[in-house]
Amino acid sequence: MTTTNLRVGLVQQACSSDRAISIAASEAGVRAAAAQGAQLVMLQELHTGLYFCQHESTELFDLAESIPGPSTEWLGGLAKELGIVLVGSLFERRAPGLYHNTAVVMERDGRLAGKYRKMHIPDDPGYYEKFYFTPGDATETTADGGRRGGFEPIQTSVGKLGLLVCWDQWYPEAARLMALAGADLLLYPTAIGANPADPFEERERQREAWVTIQRSHAVANGLPVIVANRIGYEPDPSGQTEGAKFWGSSFVAGPQGEFLARAGTDDAEVLVVDIDLARSENVRRWWPFLRDRRIDAYGDLLKRYRD
Amino acid sequence: MTTTNLRVGLVQQACSSDRAISIAASEAGVRAAAAQGAQLVMLQELHTGLYFCQHESTELFDLAESIPGPSTEWLGGLAKELGIVLVGSLFERRAPGLYHNTAVVMERDGRLAGKYRKMHIPDDPGYYEKFYFTPGDATETTADGGRRGGFEPIQTSVGKLGLLVCWDQWYPEAARLMALAGADLLLYPTAIGANPADPFEERERQREAWVTIQRSHAVANGLPVIVANRIGYEPDPSGQTEGAKFWGSSFVAGPQGEFLARAGTDDAEVLVVDIDLARSENVRRWWPFLRDRRIDAYGDLLKRYRD
Repeated sequence: MTTTNLRVGLVQQACSSDRAISIAASEAGVRAAAAQGAQLVMLQELHTGLYFCQHESTELFDLAESIPGPSTEWLGGLAKELGIVLVGSLFERRAPGLYHNTAVVMERDGRLAGKYRKMHIPDDPGYYEKFYFTPGDATETTADGGRRGGFEPIQTSVGKLGLLVCWDQWYPEAARLMALAGADLLLYPTAIGANPADPFEERERQREAWVTIQRSHAVANGLPVIVANRIGYEPDPSGQTEGAKFWGSSFVAGPQGEFLARAGTDDAEVLVVDIDLARSENVRRWWPFLRDRRIDAYGDLLKRYRD
Repeated sequence: MTTTNLRVGLVQQACSSDRAISIAASEAGVRAAAAQGAQLVMLQELHTGLYFCQHESTELFDLAESIPGPSTEWLGGLAKELGIVLVGSLFERRAPGLYHNTAVVMERDGRLAGKYRKMHIPDDPGYYEKFYFTPGDATETTADGGRRGGFEPIQTSVGKLGLLVCWDQWYPEAARLMALAGADLLLYPTAIGANPADPFEERERQREAWVTIQRSHAVANGLPVIVANRIGYEPDPSGQTEGAKFWGSSFVAGPQGEFLARAGTDDAEVLVVDIDLARSENVRRWWPFLRDRRIDAYGDLLKRYRD
């Protein structure tokens, strides 16, 4: 079996209320990764600013932007200049009153290779995303027989990217659908942290659960997984909670869920690591999980609950 | 929220070609767990003998037994004597030429509460299960409106048991279906090990992947998970492989995937630990994954592949 090496990079950073500062940190990280030879670089979720979903305010919709727009222009220019495939994230304004949490993939030539609108939207204290983001549309077939929306990998010059966003990471269904659609890699830009008021043990249980389930997507599907998460403390502007301490812990795992690279919880880091894409098929030959799926017996997965 | 405590036990043991010796080891473990107050005790997969699927031999079908039969009689008697719910495993002869890998649940009164026929059947060098075991039937509706077969939890006096077997553990679909059907716990009797000829790093990657994916089922579904696996080296009677070194590592995890109890890789152990079943709902309130499943967009999960 031939080795198909892909050098990937990710940027773990703190964000600022000043968009220019956030962008400068991202851009420095992307340049550092590219300088180390990364062919694919991923930024974290909503990397151009603070995690604004800690409270609900209609004024914050002003942060949203169109596609194409300022972020895709900036990211596309950077991708082209560095000759890399670049994955970014933005607050998308699709129409007045219709907004999404969207990840974008810019090709080496600077064009938009594709976008993914977050399908599973959280809503819990400090993460009021259902106020801001409409869930992505289910897949629909276009007039020319193509597909758009839903769990659709994005074809790029470095492979088919199974790009998902944050809350999606808790859903094995999402990872599986990407794998069944031919994804070569699973990618999760995220913004998650703990409530500083929670006991240390609880915060650690949450962080460990988050690492575990994403590694499990690698295992279940025999695919590498790339996860980028923010760091830093961000106060809750409403004062209702103690704010969020984002836990970093970005990582790259191979197709058995094994760690290939791992960032800490507190510092800005750029991870660059080689992934052997041929290893995915090798792992799938030994553990041929796709072979034995009981699609004749999975019908109830399409139900909300059995009652 | 009230605390609903359930004390669970599991038996990690080596097995022998002598059925009486295997049974004695299981029974000693079950008695030890019950003596420590366990209300639910689980044995590992195919605990009455060596893992015979290392090679293919038609003579080995002689090991199969009916339900009811010797194993359910023994297990039922033990459950009744000790006043526990007891989960066992056996090689089931359903009809001449039709065999299953079946887990059984015996109620405190000794009756059979239910059985589960392994739905996903492996087949790889040293694990020739497709030769021996027909996969369990997909769920069908019975004449009285009930359901049988498939991913159906088993109602007992200690809760609804989402009982699955070994290779099922690699399939998030199986765990999810049990959760959607109201399971209170996920249980995995297993028999898995590594090829001693593989490098240590590979064996450890495999074991870690196996732990990770089962913990992830706890996380994804907000349910405790109980896993029992055998220990010991068993040679390959055919001499084609180096045999199997079963890696033990049985464990109990809580609904965030956190370890509650954990056995080592080499020794017989009986684990007994308290599970707070009320905590599952608490965790699901904070991480309401069931709320946000995109059942409108999961249709392709019922396909083999998207091509």
